[in-house]
Amino acid sequence: MISRICILGTGLLGTSVGLALRAAGYRGSIVGWNRGAEGARTALDLGAIDFIASDPLQAARESQVTVLAVPIYATLDLMEKLVDVLGPWHLVTDVGSTKGEISAAAGRLFNSPDRAAFLPGHPMAGKERGGAALGDAELFQGAVWLFTDDPAWQRSPQSAALVKSWREWVTAMGAKTLDLEAARHDELVAWVSHLPQFVATALSALLEEQLAGAPELKDVGGRALREMTRLGASPYSMWRDIAATNTEAIQAALHALEQRLAHLRENLRTPALRDEFEQANRFRREFGQGSGSAPQ
Amino acid sequence: MISRICILGTGLLGTSVGLALRAAGYRGSIVGWNRGAEGARTALDLGAIDFIASDPLQAARESQVTVLAVPIYATLDLMEKLVDVLGPWHLVTDVGSTKGEISAAAGRLFNSPDRAAFLPGHPMAGKERGGAALGDAELFQGAVWLFTDDPAWQRSPQSAALVKSWREWVTAMGAKTLDLEAARHDELVAWVSHLPQFVATALSALLEEQLAGAPELKDVGGRALREMTRLGASPYSMWRDIAATNTEAIQAALHALEQRLAHLRENLRTPALRDEFEQANRFRREFGQGSGSAPQ
Repeated sequence: MISRICILGTGLLGTSVGLALRAAGYRGSIVGWNRGAEGARTALDLGAIDFIASDPLQAARESQVTVLAVPIYATLDLMEKLVDVLGPWHLVTDVGSTKGEISAAAGRLFNSPDRAAFLPGHPMAGKERGGAALGDAELFQGAVWLFTDDPAWQRSPQSAALVKSWREWVTAMGAKTLDLEAARHDELVAWVSHLPQFVATALSALLEEQLAGAPELKDVGGRALREMTRLGASPYSMWRDIAATNTEAIQAALHALEQRLAHLRENLRTPALRDEFEQANRFRREFGQGSGSAPQ
Repeated sequence: MISRICILGTGLLGTSVGLALRAAGYRGSIVGWNRGAEGARTALDLGAIDFIASDPLQAARESQVTVLAVPIYATLDLMEKLVDVLGPWHLVTDVGSTKGEISAAAGRLFNSPDRAAFLPGHPMAGKERGGAALGDAELFQGAVWLFTDDPAWQRSPQSAALVKSWREWVTAMGAKTLDLEAARHDELVAWVSHLPQFVATALSALLEEQLAGAPELKDVGGRALREMTRLGASPYSMWRDIAATNTEAIQAALHALEQRLAHLRENLRTPALRDEFEQANRFRREFGQGSGSAPQ
């Protein structure tokens, strides 16, 4: 029933959505818009979109579903503008990494019977770098796609049907959907996504300081060091909005880890060290088949 | 000139040494000993050793070079026993992950003209799991093999020649050798090896606690989480001796990271966050070609 989809922001995620929709059999048209012309052109060349829009608001108005695939504050800006040009026969959804502010705006601006629907979404998928050129039809295969829909929202029958249809397309793209409250979402990703990132950033920055005088010593680190600092290459530009829109949950997670590290530090020669290793081992047994590393 | 080598401990490292020596063209004999019979049998079946010794001290006495490839406290125990049965025509070396206590014992027990030489060594190579079955002739290719030799040690000409020859075999196995003072070694590995491990352990243990009530939520974490917790599977049995023999340097590194995380936590909404990301980016640019991750 969806015959036209608009993707605003053809970076890695936006382009991958277009490619994954095609791979899943979507036969309607896809229009794309991107702040930089090159990203839009690449998405077009890859077949992720059928044509490039010059005006994002007009492109959204002419589509049934609009996917916002831009940074969080840019998403919030677009939401303010879109609400005036869309109506109860439209759906807007997004792929932002934090959901508190976006869900609040969705409730305030959208999701009443006389307005467009907004379905806040967050696919847990990414790559080491961004950009349309890395767009991948398989990106969402097996990934969890979180929604922070609110059962209290009242939608028009038309836009409610679009929500249902979009959820089916997400499943068709290979993702497993999971619904959470927005606050719970932000708390959860603070632990499983934001905390690992900020730890890698802090560790990399600290090692840069410690090893600055002896760059040859960086060779000494093996796979363990490479792995634990890989995320240190992540750009500030992508994480600034996340830090600003999930500050409290990230602070709580960082503080808990600081305390945990202090506990380890105080127990390097006591039996409590065994307890910490065993608890960590349990996490890995339940979480993945991965195994640890011999000391180097 | 080395015609017989004894490997005490045919786990991953000991077995790999035997295989790498053969791959590098070593034609003398290799005798192996292991506390557990199965590990020795596997090393024999793989061709890492030519036969299995029942008495490690006798095997060492009948060889020119003995490689200790057992945990650190087991290494220190064997050093005490070996010094009485070896003489200035013997060399003992090791592969232990901390060098302070081993180098001190090497100076106290070995390395005088009337005694065997002891060359403290530490190849920066490992695998996700231990054990002879994972032994790999290529394990040391491109790896750094650290030595904490002391220029003040006085050795017999015979054992000094064995030291020179063993260093050549290490290079022939594909490793890059680097000499450091023992204290500097232990400080360095505290940063580049031990700190990453203890961070992964603390993070994994913390997440186990946080997510214990909702195991399905572990699916939400993506590659970033898997990578940052992989080392959480490392066994306490391998890390206990490291924590006990490099306590102060690890404490200093952990404490510095705690402070760094607190700094990040206090600056999630200030320009200092940019500085941290940029310093982390610099580390990764200099350290590896790896790149970061989009937020998930």
